[in-house]
Amino acid sequence: MRELEERIIREGIVREGEVLKVDSFLNHKCDVALYDHMGAEWERLFAGKPVDKILTIEASGIGIACVAARHFGNVPVVFARKTESINLDGSQYRTQIHSYTHGRDYHVIVAKRFLTPGEHVLVIDDFLANGCALNGLLEICDAAGVSVTGIGIAIEKGFQPGGKSLRERGYDLQSLAIVEAMDPKTGSIVFREQ
Amino acid sequence: MRELEERIIREGIVREGEVLKVDSFLNHKCDVALYDHMGAEWERLFAGKPVDKILTIEASGIGIACVAARHFGNVPVVFARKTESINLDGSQYRTQIHSYTHGRDYHVIVAKRFLTPGEHVLVIDDFLANGCALNGLLEICDAAGVSVTGIGIAIEKGFQPGGKSLRERGYDLQSLAIVEAMDPKTGSIVFREQ
Repeated sequence: MRELEERIIREGIVREGEVLKVDSFLNHKCDVALYDHMGAEWERLFAGKPVDKILTIEASGIGIACVAARHFGNVPVVFARKTESINLDGSQYRTQIHSYTHGRDYHVIVAKRFLTPGEHVLVIDDFLANGCALNGLLEICDAAGVSVTGIGIAIEKGFQPGGKSLRERGYDLQSLAIVEAMDPKTGSIVFREQ
Repeated sequence: MRELEERIIREGIVREGEVLKVDSFLNHKCDVALYDHMGAEWERLFAGKPVDKILTIEASGIGIACVAARHFGNVPVVFARKTESINLDGSQYRTQIHSYTHGRDYHVIVAKRFLTPGEHVLVIDDFLANGCALNGLLEICDAAGVSVTGIGIAIEKGFQPGGKSLRERGYDLQSLAIVEAMDPKTGSIVFREQ
């Protein structure tokens, strides 16, 4: 998606440790007009496929998913919640996710009553790198017996293994910008042709 | 706002400890059509007042704020981030917030470059009870030298002191539903007439 790539070039900051900072429009300050265009692009990319619900994860996925939902007939958005306490009454799907960014594991939960077996779920998130967060969401989808229509990602780090692995597993993964290489010394960012 | 009150009556669950669970439409599963109507209502309530930016706090405020932004000319949304680490380079506003729900304190930060002195900020959040989270956001607004145009809340617990205190301090606080009383034994919920 050209608009997103141009924005990353203009405002993205490349840091050591394979960090791409896009907090001026994507995940701290939010450009909701851009979010809306991203939603329209996913609508085009997933055209004709059933979407009953959008699943995302807090915090940065929520705004993107809620604005994008308008392009899918205002379907409900469910966001997986990060939690320290696990409710043991069996009312929640839960999974453990490793964060490379923060160097630790955390748990996310989704209430079972918000995912219905057989429904078609579009998974949306802001970033895909190693795929830890996404794999957690997909585990929850499997446990819930929902069908994953596709995965919409804003920015994929194509030089990390998450995207390749998900495509090999057969998921319809649509990343709006795929960073092929980036250099913290020069600040240069190269995108994969799509 | 009648639609929100009716939804609270239909799906809200009152629990011991002054807990009102509305996770089926407001803060876990998100009804984005309702979010959109809430945005339209805030637009009506804050009509004619300047709004350059919306400020909210992760996680539940983000979706509501991003959908509402459309009704304010797609102004940027900035969300305060919960954090364990404090960046000590002076690039962030930070404040400590007490969570009665979780019985502990946490820190939130906003990057200084995303709040510009003199701009007009609308603060939005899902719940107002004791006002701890909101007071944290308002402290950040003061530190940043922005002007708080108003505060838009989805559900205010009118029997807790946050709302009264903010109105006494002169803030234009617009809560779309104010719960005056609720009873975990009967499940009854009484709203303040607005």
